[in-house]
Amino acid sequence: MKLSKKNLDQRLNHVYDAVIVGGGAAGLSAAIYLARYRLSCLVIEKGRGRSFWMQELRNYLGLHPTTPGRDLLQQGEQYIQELGADHLRGFVEDVVDEGDSFAIKVKVGKADSIYPVFRAKYVIAASGIIDHLPQLADMQNVYDYAGYNLHVCLICDGYEIRDGRCGLFVGSEGAINTAFVLNWFTPYITVLTNGTVQVGEAMRQKLQEHGYPLIETPIARLLGHDHTMTGVQFADGSTIELDTGLVAMGSHYYNDYLKGLPLSWDGENLVTDEMCRTSHPRIFALGDLKRGLNQVSIAVADGTLAATAIWRDIRRASPPRRWEENLALVEAPATVRTP
Amino acid sequence: MKLSKKNLDQRLNHVYDAVIVGGGAAGLSAAIYLARYRLSCLVIEKGRGRSFWMQELRNYLGLHPTTPGRDLLQQGEQYIQELGADHLRGFVEDVVDEGDSFAIKVKVGKADSIYPVFRAKYVIAASGIIDHLPQLADMQNVYDYAGYNLHVCLICDGYEIRDGRCGLFVGSEGAINTAFVLNWFTPYITVLTNGTVQVGEAMRQKLQEHGYPLIETPIARLLGHDHTMTGVQFADGSTIELDTGLVAMGSHYYNDYLKGLPLSWDGENLVTDEMCRTSHPRIFALGDLKRGLNQVSIAVADGTLAATAIWRDIRRASPPRRWEENLALVEAPATVRTP
Repeated sequence: MKLSKKNLDQRLNHVYDAVIVGGGAAGLSAAIYLARYRLSCLVIEKGRGRSFWMQELRNYLGLHPTTPGRDLLQQGEQYIQELGADHLRGFVEDVVDEGDSFAIKVKVGKADSIYPVFRAKYVIAASGIIDHLPQLADMQNVYDYAGYNLHVCLICDGYEIRDGRCGLFVGSEGAINTAFVLNWFTPYITVLTNGTVQVGEAMRQKLQEHGYPLIETPIARLLGHDHTMTGVQFADGSTIELDTGLVAMGSHYYNDYLKGLPLSWDGENLVTDEMCRTSHPRIFALGDLKRGLNQVSIAVADGTLAATAIWRDIRRASPPRRWEENLALVEAPATVRTP
Repeated sequence: MKLSKKNLDQRLNHVYDAVIVGGGAAGLSAAIYLARYRLSCLVIEKGRGRSFWMQELRNYLGLHPTTPGRDLLQQGEQYIQELGADHLRGFVEDVVDEGDSFAIKVKVGKADSIYPVFRAKYVIAASGIIDHLPQLADMQNVYDYAGYNLHVCLICDGYEIRDGRCGLFVGSEGAINTAFVLNWFTPYITVLTNGTVQVGEAMRQKLQEHGYPLIETPIARLLGHDHTMTGVQFADGSTIELDTGLVAMGSHYYNDYLKGLPLSWDGENLVTDEMCRTSHPRIFALGDLKRGLNQVSIAVADGTLAATAIWRDIRRASPPRRWEENLALVEAPATVRTP
């Protein structure tokens, strides 16, 4: 069921089997499996996550390579509701472990916000990341190209970058090392710091040895049309032509709500076992939040794993369902012999 | 490119980066990623694997739940060829480790077979399993329902079985324990041995305590129409009505070609690391062949992992691509400062 300010009251006395924080690929896959395991779950989605911005999902088996990420999300949101799962647009602010269950505090509504608290036996953290983008005076100028030919994921989109003149947008010296992986796909790399990075001599030397220009002038704007970036104009008025770009500026992790819980971290990523279980036995972490590859296929599999682990826990702790009418039988009907 | 008897000669002198044994969900996903990493690969598919038989793929995010498995395979086969991967219909008979590469012997063609040998740096074992089915006099009678409402995977299809009168088809006493997981979805379970199983007293007692009838009479035929099984007729002429069925008779593993290699096994499953690498550093095992859940989503993620690990290996062993024309520059052009 679609929950909103108007109807969410009826779920406040319910203890869900699982609340899923994040309705991207990982969270929706977890909800499909949980619902099909006949477990109750609520997906809480803040909106506009990483997969929402993908213009073409080119490496997920079964979907035509021009399928946008939002189509995947739309199909999933509709399907989980057909299966009986709940879906709420909101932002999870806090998760408190109350022993047998968790209290999940959610902000619903940007204006006149309300702050309902839901309860669940398990929490699935699938809230993902969002890529940092170059900070220009006109951010719409960046959004016009990000996810089109201004890429944010080398593994996803290296193939599209192949042999093109590629601008590598960085926000730290360490990120410049991306050039030495990107060069598998193209050697025509220009590193762009937007005037924000101190670059040491060793790195300058390495770039020079590879023939990759480093431009440290602040960027005035991206050039292009119809979602195709064709170059960059700098603050000094100079320009370069590009065929494509890769942003390697790190990511923001949506994991603040987990920071009060005793979990095992590897930097900003959660450490999990092979079923995506964190160091807390009733908290799972999926997709980009956990260690590993940030790929839709991985996120979808993570949803499968976490839901299955939760189902096994709950099933094993539940009494078996007996075929009551047969228990009283002394003799089986003619066509059925009892054991 | 589609390979066949007529054109495969031109690939016999090529050393592929990877040969993928099996063109199901795992193998096709691996091929998508490998091709997009600009690596050469050949998918060898014997045809009619487990996912080919799936009538409805109800738990894979992004596809409508009535999508048949063969649609997934068809999309993947077409896409990998667009990406430049090769695809061959054939049966892998043997894999020999020749040190730097493998020799992969394939049987091509059921009549007038030929036995070409392909070479690859890496082998990806994605040849999967196929479920054993009840052996009846008329096997077409079984095929009419298998994959429709006669299911073979409890995790995939428990939801469809829910609260129905379910025949559990077993071929061993151990498999009867499936009843005590299946009862999460329905308690109306009748265990059918088709007269092939010795059932001990402890198991009879346990079934009786749960109220699940055990029928040991040989099965004459499945009843039903239009791919909907409605019951079973036994050799003695008696019948029972059913709404659905679950076959729990184990699987045949397509892994004979790996048996001569020094790999680590867990029963019939290959032991792999978190990137699906086996104990041999250049052999990967995906999907149903390796330990873990037998799900399309897992197979697709496995393809992602193995392809990425192979790409990393090959990339790290390759010289970097330099931007040659910039290496000779003394001064950068006006708009580009060299480092």
